[in-house]
Amino acid sequence: MHRHFGRLLSSGDGADVTFEVGGETFAAHRCVLAARSSVFMAELFGPMKENTDASVRITDMEAKVFKAMLHFIYTDSLPPMDDEQELVVMAQHLLVAADTYNLERLKLLCVEKLCNHMDASTAATTLALAEQHSCCGLKDLCFKFLASPGNMLKAVVANDGFEHVRSSCPSVLKELVAKLAP
Amino acid sequence: MHRHFGRLLSSGDGADVTFEVGGETFAAHRCVLAARSSVFMAELFGPMKENTDASVRITDMEAKVFKAMLHFIYTDSLPPMDDEQELVVMAQHLLVAADTYNLERLKLLCVEKLCNHMDASTAATTLALAEQHSCCGLKDLCFKFLASPGNMLKAVVANDGFEHVRSSCPSVLKELVAKLAP
Repeated sequence: MHRHFGRLLSSGDGADVTFEVGGETFAAHRCVLAARSSVFMAELFGPMKENTDASVRITDMEAKVFKAMLHFIYTDSLPPMDDEQELVVMAQHLLVAADTYNLERLKLLCVEKLCNHMDASTAATTLALAEQHSCCGLKDLCFKFLASPGNMLKAVVANDGFEHVRSSCPSVLKELVAKLAP
Repeated sequence: MHRHFGRLLSSGDGADVTFEVGGETFAAHRCVLAARSSVFMAELFGPMKENTDASVRITDMEAKVFKAMLHFIYTDSLPPMDDEQELVVMAQHLLVAADTYNLERLKLLCVEKLCNHMDASTAATTLALAEQHSCCGLKDLCFKFLASPGNMLKAVVANDGFEHVRSSCPSVLKELVAKLAP
């Protein structure tokens, strides 16, 4: 079934909606999006539907993230990614997308990736995302990672992501300090 | 994913085609049918497409068989059936439907059901279907069943299904006789 819908996506046969995202255009099928996401269902078929025309502009997502989200919607899996750094950054973006479009299983897949690929360069950003998107398990894991002696808290603090945590979710910093207290 | 598409089928949200089958009407989604069946792909989106309108009449299938086929197309599984006799008859009909619409996995599921639920009242009809739809494994199993001493070949021969085999695929009778020869 995943293979069949994957082929439908790549062929574009019978597509009845296009998305313009970051200068790129993606053809898709309204009913597939609606079947998979209650947000797309409301946007495309609900009484408050925003678009009766065939083109929808998405401004709050990068094209490659939208493309990966479409891949998940049609195949129930993440697209293959070789590079670990790329994988973590994509999982961070897709976690936000999954929350926006209410794609519960995609959110779980992203959390799993972020749990399994945590390092000093990404932990702070992941912590901020975990806080903003109510991923308790992931947040706990970030705390544990940051509090463990080997994980160069100094390197994490020096990172841009940490500044992001400080400005976007200051309350979580307080929690972190409490965890770090002996 | 199966659950999502099952819900799409039962809600009918965004349906863009209806089928009239044996006096009943079924709403469906062109792109889902096309993704799952190359025959629907050609009929609904191909250059030779027969129907640009929203209604398609199916005359060579019973309504309950079409309904079960739709269930498979959307959920990748057979609908639940409690009664064993009903299950076998449905699997026989769905085997024909699967071959007509090129639903390879549905054909495998039907063959599996027919292999596991063979009895004197259905074996002859199943043998005819196995011959007509190129299911070698199922055909061999029918021969084994019919040739085994405990399986009341007389009861099978007395059955309507056997008459059907005789008239519709006489060559298979010759094969059966050869198998029965000591």
